[in-house]
Amino acid sequence: MPDKVLIYSRFPKAQLQRFGERYELLNAAGRRPDEAFSAEELADIRALITAGGSGRLGAEAMDMMPKLGAIICYGTGYDGIDLAAAATRNIAVGNSPGANAASVADIAVTLMLAAVRRLPVADNYVRSGDWAGAKPSPMMRPQAGMRGRKVGVYGMGEIGRKIAARVAAFETEVGYFSRSRHDVPYRYFSSLEALADWCSILMVAVRAGPDNTNAVNADILRRLGTDGFVVNISRGSVIDEAALVAALSDQTIAGAGLDVYATEPHAPDTLTALPNVVLTPHIGGHTLESHVAMQDCVLANLDAFFAGKPLPYQVRLA
Amino acid sequence: MPDKVLIYSRFPKAQLQRFGERYELLNAAGRRPDEAFSAEELADIRALITAGGSGRLGAEAMDMMPKLGAIICYGTGYDGIDLAAAATRNIAVGNSPGANAASVADIAVTLMLAAVRRLPVADNYVRSGDWAGAKPSPMMRPQAGMRGRKVGVYGMGEIGRKIAARVAAFETEVGYFSRSRHDVPYRYFSSLEALADWCSILMVAVRAGPDNTNAVNADILRRLGTDGFVVNISRGSVIDEAALVAALSDQTIAGAGLDVYATEPHAPDTLTALPNVVLTPHIGGHTLESHVAMQDCVLANLDAFFAGKPLPYQVRLA
Repeated sequence: MPDKVLIYSRFPKAQLQRFGERYELLNAAGRRPDEAFSAEELADIRALITAGGSGRLGAEAMDMMPKLGAIICYGTGYDGIDLAAAATRNIAVGNSPGANAASVADIAVTLMLAAVRRLPVADNYVRSGDWAGAKPSPMMRPQAGMRGRKVGVYGMGEIGRKIAARVAAFETEVGYFSRSRHDVPYRYFSSLEALADWCSILMVAVRAGPDNTNAVNADILRRLGTDGFVVNISRGSVIDEAALVAALSDQTIAGAGLDVYATEPHAPDTLTALPNVVLTPHIGGHTLESHVAMQDCVLANLDAFFAGKPLPYQVRLA
Repeated sequence: MPDKVLIYSRFPKAQLQRFGERYELLNAAGRRPDEAFSAEELADIRALITAGGSGRLGAEAMDMMPKLGAIICYGTGYDGIDLAAAATRNIAVGNSPGANAASVADIAVTLMLAAVRRLPVADNYVRSGDWAGAKPSPMMRPQAGMRGRKVGVYGMGEIGRKIAARVAAFETEVGYFSRSRHDVPYRYFSSLEALADWCSILMVAVRAGPDNTNAVNADILRRLGTDGFVVNISRGSVIDEAALVAALSDQTIAGAGLDVYATEPHAPDTLTALPNVVLTPHIGGHTLESHVAMQDCVLANLDAFFAGKPLPYQVRLA
């Protein structure tokens, strides 16, 4: 009889298929486990799969499954998990480190280029017939492009490194700020303020946590200048969203590209109404190859756990 | 008294400003010179500035200006100029080689990434509220991304090289086809067919000419496969536009990113209606820095011509 695994968050069916071939899945699909299943059913659960970033998972939910020994995050993020609560309950937490780094770095550069070259406006200018009609469009005036730009990367983990390597190919200068200096060929800045003074494009790639909530605030945005852009593929919490909307509306900065938002899946109307932003629905890691890589990590973690071995991709308390 | 220069094509005023500081401009703005100016006025004209690619300039127009000695193209392209007619009239033709290569290569990669990640669909999914409403969208299903892709570059001039260097940073394999092999670190293919068989993304960066009209036809597109993409930043003439629309409509290929069209500024309705394309209005070279660089070339050519010297950036007959 296959081991039982609870699916905590809501996942598209296709993403669960490989797990279902090896385990019996109890799919709560985003509901409270105790609303989706009986206490008897939950009593058997020793492992669960969750979207580490978006689904909140605290002590209360953990205590609904007294035998719970492993929380396996599908993806890199685990900021939705109460790690301290898991540790006191002897629950191992696993994730899929780096599995989606290339895809996320790609969407970061996609958003950067699309914002700088005003791609949604340009695409609409062609489709609407305004180009054929020679209709004047102030938004279509030439802007500064990439060559010679100073691009700052905030966070130098696996995703930050991949962003930096991609951005450097566009004949730019790349600098970065992170808690510590890394062995990378980019200029290091010891504070986010100093990085923002130096660069005109800020790529937010830092792992989100309580220490960097709203780190990109009105002051940081102002330092980027009127030709400045912000791209965020990390978490919405890192940017003060109200300050960003204000800076975009009064042209304190030139534009932004966002894959993540303060309260997903809701992007505020004040943001979606702006022409100088490019918005994607948290799809950074959503390529076929990164899903396969993430599923590989989830299965390796599950298989190890049920075999009584340590998780190969285990999240450690910092 | 400043020398007189005819402006042949239609240019935005801002792009002519630096020329007007040094020369007296007679702005035909896209009209026939003999409709815009009298024969007496045209008799004085020794040099003109034109958009080499989009504005047609043949023997008839040249003969309206009997003293014409220099045709200066604003930009890299000169395919609109009848070079043979200019040569027999002893008219030098200049252009702005490489001045916009970085900007054009950037838009090529922007279109590639936007097409592969379906950026316009994604942006609209957020703005429309469909994401917040969890509305299913087959177009938003994960697709193959960039990592491990085989990308083929058609043409290995300055723009092709810059495209290749950028694309390689996305963890792809890069191959190319051009008339001759170049000293570049990418795999060479001796025909467009062989390149299209090998790659799934085809970047069209070849200089357009009579020898490559409709070179990217239904057969080439079919070879790219159902996961295939075409990006064109060269000239619309290089792609059989009707075959492209058909291949996109019946999903012979997955998508396309286009900055150029067969009959600009008209993109056919059959193309603009498609969700799997990203369209820009021939803005490849339109960044502030590439305009400054193109203007530098135009001024250097004009100044040399009026000083009786050879053009520093002269187009040679192949």
